[in-house]
Amino acid sequence: VYLRNEWYVAALSDELEGRPVARTLLGQPLVLFRTASGKAAVMDNRCPHRGAPLSTGEVVGESLVCGYHGFSFETTGRCNHIPGGAVIPAKACVRSYPVVDRWGWVFVWMGDLAHVDESLLPNFRWTAEPGWAGGRDYLHVRSNYTLVRDNLLDLTHARFVHKNTLATSAVTDTPIRTSLHGRVVRVERNMLNIEPSPFFKKIPGFKGRVDHRQCIEFHAASYISINTTVTAVAGEDDDRTAAFYVLNAMTPETDKSTHYFWALVRNFAPEDDEVTRMQHELNRATFQEDVDILEQQQALLDSAPADWQPVAVPNDGGCIQAARLMKRLLAQEAGSTA
Amino acid sequence: VYLRNEWYVAALSDELEGRPVARTLLGQPLVLFRTASGKAAVMDNRCPHRGAPLSTGEVVGESLVCGYHGFSFETTGRCNHIPGGAVIPAKACVRSYPVVDRWGWVFVWMGDLAHVDESLLPNFRWTAEPGWAGGRDYLHVRSNYTLVRDNLLDLTHARFVHKNTLATSAVTDTPIRTSLHGRVVRVERNMLNIEPSPFFKKIPGFKGRVDHRQCIEFHAASYISINTTVTAVAGEDDDRTAAFYVLNAMTPETDKSTHYFWALVRNFAPEDDEVTRMQHELNRATFQEDVDILEQQQALLDSAPADWQPVAVPNDGGCIQAARLMKRLLAQEAGSTA
Amino acid sequence: VYLRNEWYVAALSDELEGRPVARTLLGQPLVLFRTASGKAAVMDNRCPHRGAPLSTGEVVGESLVCGYHGFSFETTGRCNHIPGGAVIPAKACVRSYPVVDRWGWVFVWMGDLAHVDESLLPNFRWTAEPGWAGGRDYLHVRSNYTLVRDNLLDLTHARFVHKNTLATSAVTDTPIRTSLHGRVVRVERNMLNIEPSPFFKKIPGFKGRVDHRQCIEFHAASYISINTTVTAVAGEDDDRTAAFYVLNAMTPETDKSTHYFWALVRNFAPEDDEVTRMQHELNRATFQEDVDILEQQQALLDSAPADWQPVAVPNDGGCIQAARLMKRLLAQEAGSTA
Repeated sequence: VYLRNEWYVAALSDELEGRPVARTLLGQPLVLFRTASGKAAVMDNRCPHRGAPLSTGEVVGESLVCGYHGFSFETTGRCNHIPGGAVIPAKACVRSYPVVDRWGWVFVWMGDLAHVDESLLPNFRWTAEPGWAGGRDYLHVRSNYTLVRDNLLDLTHARFVHKNTLATSAVTDTPIRTSLHGRVVRVERNMLNIEPSPFFKKIPGFKGRVDHRQCIEFHAASYISINTTVTAVAGEDDDRTAAFYVLNAMTPETDKSTHYFWALVRNFAPEDDEVTRMQHELNRATFQEDVDILEQQQALLDSAPADWQPVAVPNDGGCIQAARLMKRLLAQEAGSTA
Repeated sequence: VYLRNEWYVAALSDELEGRPVARTLLGQPLVLFRTASGKAAVMDNRCPHRGAPLSTGEVVGESLVCGYHGFSFETTGRCNHIPGGAVIPAKACVRSYPVVDRWGWVFVWMGDLAHVDESLLPNFRWTAEPGWAGGRDYLHVRSNYTLVRDNLLDLTHARFVHKNTLATSAVTDTPIRTSLHGRVVRVERNMLNIEPSPFFKKIPGFKGRVDHRQCIEFHAASYISINTTVTAVAGEDDDRTAAFYVLNAMTPETDKSTHYFWALVRNFAPEDDEVTRMQHELNRATFQEDVDILEQQQALLDSAPADWQPVAVPNDGGCIQAARLMKRLLAQEAGSTA
Repeated sequence: VYLRNEWYVAALSDELEGRPVARTLLGQPLVLFRTASGKAAVMDNRCPHRGAPLSTGEVVGESLVCGYHGFSFETTGRCNHIPGGAVIPAKACVRSYPVVDRWGWVFVWMGDLAHVDESLLPNFRWTAEPGWAGGRDYLHVRSNYTLVRDNLLDLTHARFVHKNTLATSAVTDTPIRTSLHGRVVRVERNMLNIEPSPFFKKIPGFKGRVDHRQCIEFHAASYISINTTVTAVAGEDDDRTAAFYVLNAMTPETDKSTHYFWALVRNFAPEDDEVTRMQHELNRATFQEDVDILEQQQALLDSAPADWQPVAVPNDGGCIQAARLMKRLLAQEAGSTA
C-alpha cells in the first residue's frame, strides 16, 4: 500500500536523453521518455494493442511509437496513429502521468489528477543552486523503501556500517531531538567538539576538532534530506565551516525493492572537480554498504514470524515518528478515496 | 490448458544423436533419446523407482537405463531389467509417447492413444525437398506459445522490430485477407511493386522493385508456415522469382515458456552454402529480436489487471481467427474427453 | 517438518575462524561464530532491534556486536550493551542454541532445552582418532535431506552414478541385510572375492581380488556412517586390509535444500599426505556426481502428481526402514510436544 497523491522520483533527468526507459514504480510498469522538444513524459508501458513494451519503441517528434506494431502515442497517452490507417479504437490509449522535471530529477504523480499539487514537491534546490557543487546517482535496492528511510533516520548506523567514511562514536553517544512539522519529521543531533569522521578529514580536510551538526528531515512519502554542518571549533587553527546536503528519494519499485536516488552537494570549493569526484566516489561506496545490509535485513524480515516486531530505543525516535506519520497519511488518503 | 490430441515438435532430429535429452513439454518433464537401431523415443523422465531423471542414464541397445540405480526401460516404457535380479513390480513402468521422426524434427503425440493420427501432421516437406535449401534452428522463449503464434500472424511487426532485415512500409500499408480452412487460418498479403526489404536485397539480391506475396498459415495447435514469393516486376532488368518457406513449430514448455523450432528454406541456388549460411544467420538474428519483445510482452501481461484485454485492429485478423479456432478446438477436445 | 530434539551439524569447526557465518538451518536463519576465547556459538541471525543480520557484525570479546546499530549480544543471546547507553529493553534478546564443537564439526541443538542430550550425538570419533587420516568437506545440495539420506542407504547407485570411482557390478548383485537397532538402521553387504572398484585400485592400490564389506548406518535424524573394509582374498600376493569411514551429516537448510557435510578417513598410511589429498579429491568429485542427480530428482518430485509414490525393490530396504523410523520418531516428538 503506497500513498498515491504524492510526487515520486522516477528517473534522473539525464536518463531520458537516450532510449525510452522501462521502469516499475509502485508496482506499475512505466515507460519514461523525453520528446523531441525536450518534454519528459511518463506513461504505462503496456501497449493497449497487444501488451508489448512501449519502451522498446522510438520517440518520433512529440510521440512515442510502439516498438512492436507501431501504434503511436502522444504524451497525454492518446493514440494518434495506427499503421495501415486503421480507425483508432477508443480503448487504444494508455494512462499517462503528470511530470515535473526539476533539480536533475524527473518527478511523477501517480495519484488522483484532481489533487496534483507542485507545492508538495520537496525543496531540493541546493542541487541546482550557485555556490553548491556535487552530483547525483542511482542505486537499486532489493528492500522495501521504508527500510531505506529508516536507515537514514537513524544515523547511529554510520559508526558500524561505514567504518571508513562516516564513523564517529559521537553519533551513538549524542542524543537526538525529534520533532514533527506537518508532513515532515525532523531529527537533530549536535555533536560538539569531536574528532571529525574520516570523510570530513578528507573533505574539506579538517585536521582538528569540530562541531558536527546533523539535521535529518523526512518529507512524506519518500524523501529524506540530510543537512550536515561541520565547523572547526574555536581554538583550532581553522575557521572553516562546511555544509552538505544529502538529498534522498526512495521510490518504491515493488514492496520488496526500491529505486534509490541520491544527490550530495557541498557549499565550498564548487569548482574543484577533483573534490566533487572524490566526494561522489566516497558516497557511492558508503551507500553500497547500506544496500548490502538492507537487502539482508529485508530477507530476514521476510522469513520472520508474522508477529515479529522491532524493539525500540531512543535513537529510533525518527523512525517511529515517520512510521506514525505515514500510517496517518495512508489512513487519510484511504478515507478521502473511500 | 493445451490441446493434447496433437503432434508437437519435441526436438530437432539431430539433437538425439548424443546423450538423452531432458525437456519439458506441455508442463511434463520428458526424456528424448534414440536407440541403437536409430529409433527416436519419448518417455516421462521421472523414473518410477525413486523419481530420478532417466535422462542422466544411457541408451543400451533398444533400452534406456536409468542413471541412478539402473532400472532399464524399453521405448514402450516397459521395465525389462532391475539390477540385482529383483522381480519387476507392475508399477515399474513409465509412460511413453508416439513419435514421428520426419523432416528433421521429432514430433510427439501426448494425447489419447486412440486418436493418434499422422494425417494431423503439418506438411513441412519443403525442408527435405530437392531444389530447396536452408536450415533449421531452435530458440527458447520465455513467453506463452500463443504470443509467438500471434507474432507470426501479424507481420506488420517486421517494420518496427526487424528494421535491418524484413522491414518494409508496405507491410503495414497493404491490407490482409484472412480465411479459415478447417484447422488452418490463412492470412495473405500481396505487396505489389515495392522496394524490396533489406533481406531480399541481399538474398537473392533484388536491385529493382518487386512483387512480394506473403501467405501465412496457422495449423492448429502449434504450427505456422510462411510462404513468401518475391518476383521482380515487369520492366526491371530481372526475371527472377524467389520463394521461401519459414516453417515454425511453437511447442509449449510451460504456460510461460516455449520451445520455438524454425526452419527456413528457399527454392534457388540450393548448392550455394554461403547463401545458406547467410540466410541462416540473418534469420537467427531477426528471430532473436522477436524473442526480446515477446519476453517483455509476457512480463507485462503477467502484471496486467485480470480484466486486461488487447485492442484489435484489422491487421489482427489472423490472430483473432487463430484464437477463435483454438478456443473451439479446446472446447471440442474437452467435450470429447468428458 | 523436522525432528527438533536432535543435534544437527551447523558448520565445519574451521568455518568459524573468520567472520561470523550466516546460515539457515531447519528453515531458520542463524548466525554462527566463535568468541575471542574460542567458544563456538549459534544464535538467531535476526537482530531484535530492526531485523538486521547479526552476521554482518563483529565479535568483540565474548559478544557479537550487530553490524547495523551496534547492539551487543552474549552467546546466551542476552543483550549486554546498546550504543548511546539506552536502557536495555526486555525484548532485546535473541534465541541462542546449545552447541557441541567436536570432531571438526559444530553440532547445534534447535529443540527443547529440557531435552538437550549429548549422548544423542553420533559417534564420529574416527575423524579425530590416531591411526586414521583423511579430511572433511561441505556441499550445498538443492534437494531435501531425505534424498541425500536415501542416496547413501542404497549404494547400488555407485555402479551407475560413479563409474570412475566406486562402480562395481557386485554392488547390485549382492543382496543386503537390513536391521533396526533403536534409532539406527543398519544395511550390510558383503561382496566377496570381487574385482576392486576403481577407487580401491588407486587407494590403497589393490591389484588382485578382494572381499569388500559395507556397513551403512543411518543414525536418526541426519547422519549416515559408512564403514567399508576391503581385504585381499587368500591366494592373492597381498595380505592387506583397508578400512574406511565415510561420515555424513545431512542438515536440512529448507525443505528443498541441504547442508551436506562429509568426512572420509582411512586406517592406513596416515602420514601419506598425497594419499590424503587424492582420496579427498576423488571423493569430492564422486559426491558432486550425486549432487547433480539429487537436484534433478528433487525437481522431478516437485513436478510429480500429488499421489506419486516410489516403487520399491529389495535394495530399497534401508531407505524404507529409515523412512519408517523417521515417521515414528516424528510422531513421538509431536506427541510429546502436544
